Amino acid sequence: MPIITLTTDFGLRDGYVAAMRGVMLSLAPTATIVDVSHAIRLAAVRQAAYILASAVPYFPAETIHVAVVDPGVGSARRPLALSTPLGIFVGPDNGLLPETARLAGVADADMAAYHLTRPAYWQLSVSATFHGRDIFAPVAAHLALGAPLPDLGEPVTDPVTLPPLAPSPLPDGAWQGEVLHIDHFGNLITTLEVTRLPTPPVVGQAVVEIGGLRLPLLVTFSAAAEGEALAYVGSSGRIEVAVRQGDAAATLGAQVGAAVILCGQS
Amino acid sequence: MPIITLTTDFGLRDGYVAAMRGVMLSLAPTATIVDVSHAIRLAAVRQAAYILASAVPYFPAETIHVAVVDPGVGSARRPLALSTPLGIFVGPDNGLLPETARLAGVADADMAAYHLTRPAYWQLSVSATFHGRDIFAPVAAHLALGAPLPDLGEPVTDPVTLPPLAPSPLPDGAWQGEVLHIDHFGNLITTLEVTRLPTPPVVGQAVVEIGGLRLPLLVTFSAAAEGEALAYVGSSGRIEVAVRQGDAAATLGAQVGAAVILCGQS
Amino acid sequence: MPIITLTTDFGLRDGYVAAMRGVMLSLAPTATIVDVSHAIRLAAVRQAAYILASAVPYFPAETIHVAVVDPGVGSARRPLALSTPLGIFVGPDNGLLPETARLAGVADADMAAYHLTRPAYWQLSVSATFHGRDIFAPVAAHLALGAPLPDLGEPVTDPVTLPPLAPSPLPDGAWQGEVLHIDHFGNLITTLEVTRLPTPPVVGQAVVEIGGLRLPLLVTFSAAAEGEALAYVGSSGRIEVAVRQGDAAATLGAQVGAAVILCGQS
Repeated sequence: MPIITLTTDFGLRDGYVAAMRGVMLSLAPTATIVDVSHAIRLAAVRQAAYILASAVPYFPAETIHVAVVDPGVGSARRPLALSTPLGIFVGPDNGLLPETARLAGVADADMAAYHLTRPAYWQLSVSATFHGRDIFAPVAAHLALGAPLPDLGEPVTDPVTLPPLAPSPLPDGAWQGEVLHIDHFGNLITTLEVTRLPTPPVVGQAVVEIGGLRLPLLVTFSAAAEGEALAYVGSSGRIEVAVRQGDAAATLGAQVGAAVILCGQS
Repeated sequence: MPIITLTTDFGLRDGYVAAMRGVMLSLAPTATIVDVSHAIRLAAVRQAAYILASAVPYFPAETIHVAVVDPGVGSARRPLALSTPLGIFVGPDNGLLPETARLAGVADADMAAYHLTRPAYWQLSVSATFHGRDIFAPVAAHLALGAPLPDLGEPVTDPVTLPPLAPSPLPDGAWQGEVLHIDHFGNLITTLEVTRLPTPPVVGQAVVEIGGLRLPLLVTFSAAAEGEALAYVGSSGRIEVAVRQGDAAATLGAQVGAAVILCGQS
Repeated sequence: MPIITLTTDFGLRDGYVAAMRGVMLSLAPTATIVDVSHAIRLAAVRQAAYILASAVPYFPAETIHVAVVDPGVGSARRPLALSTPLGIFVGPDNGLLPETARLAGVADADMAAYHLTRPAYWQLSVSATFHGRDIFAPVAAHLALGAPLPDLGEPVTDPVTLPPLAPSPLPDGAWQGEVLHIDHFGNLITTLEVTRLPTPPVVGQAVVEIGGLRLPLLVTFSAAAEGEALAYVGSSGRIEVAVRQGDAAATLGAQVGAAVILCGQS
């Protein structure tokens, strides 16, 4: 049976995630359910997309990824499922699902969206405020059990999408991106994906500018001295900025959205 | 095999919950174990009961729910199991188990309590301070494996119970309740359960008073303007107070126990 | 199939732990994977060893314990596996694995270390910064599937070890240890393991000194008055210091490493 993953901004203090698990396990008792994160900042759709996308490539291609981060909960936005070569994404129609798929490397042409319209696959009673439990969880369980996605809704061609955060070219082969996410270690993950640049940056030559600082691009943390800031290509294939054995976000005072420039040579 | 759920105030920093899982999986290797919450405030028995009760209806009726929140750990209070139509609850005899069952909708007449007295179903060595690992975890595993509850202890008719938090009637059909729980989003969940009131409140007519504010009862979040406070019937069937895209607890300065009044008409 | 446990300083906000789970479940779909803790303080190798060691004895002896807490990530330190009678430990060669095994009660002579040198058992592409996902997770999955440890690497006899934190004898049969860990409740867990002392301390006679205070050794929390500090033998078999229904670390201002003296009689 396919794995089901969960990504939400629900936190782990209340019983919300457990209720979703209860719904899914009632329908599919042998399902394997994996938490990606429940600590997404409230309504931070882009952060959720990045975090889930960073984990998606490590799951089997038939995995069902449920993502519920939704400033518009209770409004008229549609419940959605998105079929892709990396799995089926289930969640609100607010841009989260296509953005996650795109960040994970799926081309737009390979995404097929369905408006989830068949209450036969939902909880008997659907609350106004908890679609994660009442719609998305049972839909994920039915998909894991083998229900064909077209049985659960209607194809749609107009899912909400987010404006892309693609790096912009600058003179002299430089590229400007921004800070996309600050992780648990205070590392800054940027929108500069090295495999999408026309020329990959060269370690020892390239320089990353952030907040007026110019940092050398190194192979890894341990190439810098303790407490020293550096840039490197992170495990997600993006330029990241860190302070060795320190917290780059705190040290540099950087926030999500801050400009980051990659210069081809020092 | 029945699912086992876990609700504690142990946190997730230490290895305490993992030790409980190790004990259960050593006895019942194929058990499905679900965390409800390990972030209950220390010794907050009522909060634990509410959080677990909000998840219980979404699990199969044969589920084993282990709940360990216990200001009296190490004292003489009895280890208990409570058989109900919604599953078997296992934990300390401090009011937590019957209160959870009652909040989940179980009538007192449908609860059967057992004092867990048979060390054959416990860890070989029982520490004075960690009954979750040494008594409750192995008992839950044995129950999941099919051991009949009467084999594990003696029926008792005097489990500790908490005084009920039922709403009080006021003049003009109004009801006074209180804030029962503040969730991850800062929403205030109250003791006002709409299905237990003689007349259900009518959206657009009813008004909820808290801390000197009068809030209209709306269908859901999105019926309010951003930053505006509102009341609505939450996914647990209770009156809740929220600030749209905000934190009601912070905005209103409300705490657990604060008075909340539901007025029949505006 | 053996259980796999995970202990890291990765936190639960990002998708790092989920990526490890995805790698493992892709290889071993029916594996049972248990989180011990992902809230280890950054690079706190000793804390990680203590927390994992406190859970290890409650898992079956064939369990695979993955522990990744690594100030030197990206440096030249070796990836390691340590075979012991309590299971196989997998992680960086920085002292974490032998220290965990030792704290769990394994004798040095019963540990066999292997330098993990066979990329056939790793992810196809290994990043410089995320060996947890790219080396340790797939190695654990292959071990759970039954791959013999000698196939995965070369025996080595020089794994990095940490200097022991054994208590020192003082005059009059007293012993000096230190605070090893402060848990979720603010309890102080010390290096004073009672079964390793020549004479076990006697409740009601022994006294524990910390920060100028002299505390009686009691059986358990409830033998002290509310708000009162006490010492007792904790569920891990060590002298612990607590404040009944309070936070000992906050009340006593104690930190990891603070001196603790056990006096044989009052």
